[in-house]
Amino acid sequence: MLDEIRESVFRANLDLVKHGLVVHSWGNVSGRDPETGYIVIKPSGISYEKLRADDMVVVDLSGKIIEGKLNPSTDTPTHLLLYRTWPGIGGIVHTHSTCATAWAQAGRNIPALGTTHADTFYGEIPCTRKLKAAEVKSDYEVNTGRVIIERLSNMDPLHMPSVLVYGHGPFSWGTTPEQAVYNAVTLEEVARMALYTILLGKDKPVEKYLLDKHFQRKHGKKAYYGQSKN
Amino acid sequence: MLDEIRESVFRANLDLVKHGLVVHSWGNVSGRDPETGYIVIKPSGISYEKLRADDMVVVDLSGKIIEGKLNPSTDTPTHLLLYRTWPGIGGIVHTHSTCATAWAQAGRNIPALGTTHADTFYGEIPCTRKLKAAEVKSDYEVNTGRVIIERLSNMDPLHMPSVLVYGHGPFSWGTTPEQAVYNAVTLEEVARMALYTILLGKDKPVEKYLLDKHFQRKHGKKAYYGQSKN
Amino acid sequence: MLDEIRESVFRANLDLVKHGLVVHSWGNVSGRDPETGYIVIKPSGISYEKLRADDMVVVDLSGKIIEGKLNPSTDTPTHLLLYRTWPGIGGIVHTHSTCATAWAQAGRNIPALGTTHADTFYGEIPCTRKLKAAEVKSDYEVNTGRVIIERLSNMDPLHMPSVLVYGHGPFSWGTTPEQAVYNAVTLEEVARMALYTILLGKDKPVEKYLLDKHFQRKHGKKAYYGQSKN
Amino acid sequence: MLDEIRESVFRANLDLVKHGLVVHSWGNVSGRDPETGYIVIKPSGISYEKLRADDMVVVDLSGKIIEGKLNPSTDTPTHLLLYRTWPGIGGIVHTHSTCATAWAQAGRNIPALGTTHADTFYGEIPCTRKLKAAEVKSDYEVNTGRVIIERLSNMDPLHMPSVLVYGHGPFSWGTTPEQAVYNAVTLEEVARMALYTILLGKDKPVEKYLLDKHFQRKHGKKAYYGQSKN
Repeated sequence: MLDEIRESVFRANLDLVKHGLVVHSWGNVSGRDPETGYIVIKPSGISYEKLRADDMVVVDLSGKIIEGKLNPSTDTPTHLLLYRTWPGIGGIVHTHSTCATAWAQAGRNIPALGTTHADTFYGEIPCTRKLKAAEVKSDYEVNTGRVIIERLSNMDPLHMPSVLVYGHGPFSWGTTPEQAVYNAVTLEEVARMALYTILLGKDKPVEKYLLDKHFQRKHGKKAYYGQSKN
Repeated sequence: MLDEIRESVFRANLDLVKHGLVVHSWGNVSGRDPETGYIVIKPSGISYEKLRADDMVVVDLSGKIIEGKLNPSTDTPTHLLLYRTWPGIGGIVHTHSTCATAWAQAGRNIPALGTTHADTFYGEIPCTRKLKAAEVKSDYEVNTGRVIIERLSNMDPLHMPSVLVYGHGPFSWGTTPEQAVYNAVTLEEVARMALYTILLGKDKPVEKYLLDKHFQRKHGKKAYYGQSKN
Repeated sequence: MLDEIRESVFRANLDLVKHGLVVHSWGNVSGRDPETGYIVIKPSGISYEKLRADDMVVVDLSGKIIEGKLNPSTDTPTHLLLYRTWPGIGGIVHTHSTCATAWAQAGRNIPALGTTHADTFYGEIPCTRKLKAAEVKSDYEVNTGRVIIERLSNMDPLHMPSVLVYGHGPFSWGTTPEQAVYNAVTLEEVARMALYTILLGKDKPVEKYLLDKHFQRKHGKKAYYGQSKN
Repeated sequence: MLDEIRESVFRANLDLVKHGLVVHSWGNVSGRDPETGYIVIKPSGISYEKLRADDMVVVDLSGKIIEGKLNPSTDTPTHLLLYRTWPGIGGIVHTHSTCATAWAQAGRNIPALGTTHADTFYGEIPCTRKLKAAEVKSDYEVNTGRVIIERLSNMDPLHMPSVLVYGHGPFSWGTTPEQAVYNAVTLEEVARMALYTILLGKDKPVEKYLLDKHFQRKHGKKAYYGQSKN
């Protein structure tokens, strides 16, 4: 069973490269094993070209290494806090993808400027507050998770499956590693479109009724996009 | 005969990927069978990697499924209204291509800033009005078609083979699915050039006589571009 | 002997695609045969995917077809005027490459903002004046050549191997078709850098002594860049 | 032993192409042989497609050719001055990569706008002063090295492994040719993100404590990123 999630996390990491979301080894995907609840994550600082499925590290929710010989990503404590807080999510992606990172560096929420955005994100994509000096100096990676949780406190994480960490870059998530990658790809494209839209002079979001329509059409109870799941 | 249009629509859908116009499954191409008048369209929410020619859905102009086991694209009612209104068109493309979508999100018509534009679009590329709440809440996809028709009301759709739907993205069309894809590719490139031109400080269109010359050189009665069609 | 130039022009046309300078069939390369003085040029409106070396059209300097079954590019009269005026050039490229076209649409000369520019272009890259209505209505392609010649009147075309035609796009040239393509690729990159530089707040050219140094280092009598030509 | 560094420099030069940092032959990598102290560098003006490992030129620190039949890069005097001044560096890269060059053309330092920057560059990436006329007219390449050294005078070159030469473009370095290429790739991505961030309205650097944290996490004595080096 762990073989399946290990393979799935491994492939999801390679998909970041395929979709142009990572330079060097900047990025990582993790996934939660539905049976054991263990988390599988990419090892730290290994180039994507050398990465093999066997290099994935298995940890429990407290961060104890269960399987694997390499150090897990330095961002592991951030991932674990999100998994502990949000039982509904099964995959997390962190990248420094170009446009989403530019918004994070600018410290701006990405307004919902169109239906491409609304199809996945139910409102503006939030940017966290700045971490304080003390939060950076100790337990930095845990505190990164904390400002994410704090910023998303009133939201359903599956209705807002991405966040921008101030001055840093994006995290995305979903019910599986594959869906987390899907959302990370969408985020980058939405961030690029929003940058261009702002250069064309518009930063006001679309009407609430259009946002509702598009998000519900894909994710609501009466969703009618795609094929029947039966 | 339907085999031919089905294959043609299938290949046109894959061409959207090849030309970099789509992310995920965001985009669809349909085509009209010249014999039966039926419409062939991409199924909803199927990834391009898994798409096969047999997955294409055949519907009549009222939307009744004639052949195919999958749900047609959720945008089918928009396509059908355009086919019913404009008997001269034989293919329609909808994408969320980056730059055209940015213009749609900005709610701006794309001015005819040069001859690349004028070779295909006879004037500024129109952006529709905003849909009203009631138009979004019910019959949304049909109403999307209606604002397109309304916006193009004084134009020959083959002289203005694209539109931007406000806050959403572009639709393009042509006499065949291939030509609709050609126009969608052109639109994205023209939208990108226009964005850059505006960043360089110009948003005034070219002179009417230059627009006329280029459009007529390719599409007028005395067209002399390309090879003789005999 | 014509086989050699035909092959060379054919390959140069494909290189436009390889370097990302063309969309669809928008672009053409021609070359002058050093023996006969004939011009070999791409046929009009043939897609690059279907293009074969045998499709190249051979014309004399007056435009009379010497060899070839297809219509030559509609831009042939522009090419011919440049060849007649400038005996030193042996290849011409016309594209609608994205950034160079944006500058042409903006009607702006590209200032010499750095050494990348100065290595190939000895001063700002000129944009022609607007063509008048009468110049567009008849003999349009010849008149396009005329405004290019007019704009370059005080310059050595091998010291300024590109021009922007107002509202249209770039033409580049060189001693051979290969060199013309080299210059077209350089122009697009220089145009992109200049756009970004302007977005960063600078539009003043570099000092004349730096421009001189870089251009002379590669092209002057005391050039010391590259390998000895002996 | 020289075979190893020659191969390493050769491959590093090809990696510039792979990472999209060079157009034509604009760029070069050199490396220092740890045993002999000789410098291996790319020959001048040879296209990357034709480049072979045997073409690399070996020079001593004074510039005397030790091995190789071709002229070394015209930028060799710049490389040599950096190697003589900074004994800790073992590889240097010069490119005209698009965004880094745009910043150099704008004459602006790149502010440390986020953690992607801070992971590699310990503070803003400096732009040199303008060279004076006399500095350009004679010993230009040596003087380019001099303004780099002058600009970095108070810095550890391994804490600030890139510089922008005013009106020209970037140089990057590292302990090996591979690491120099790594830093050149990072610089280009950081320059692109910084351009976009500025277009989104922010040009103030991140807090010093965040800069410290990220740089130290990867490069300080207590670094904990990546795998143990034992």
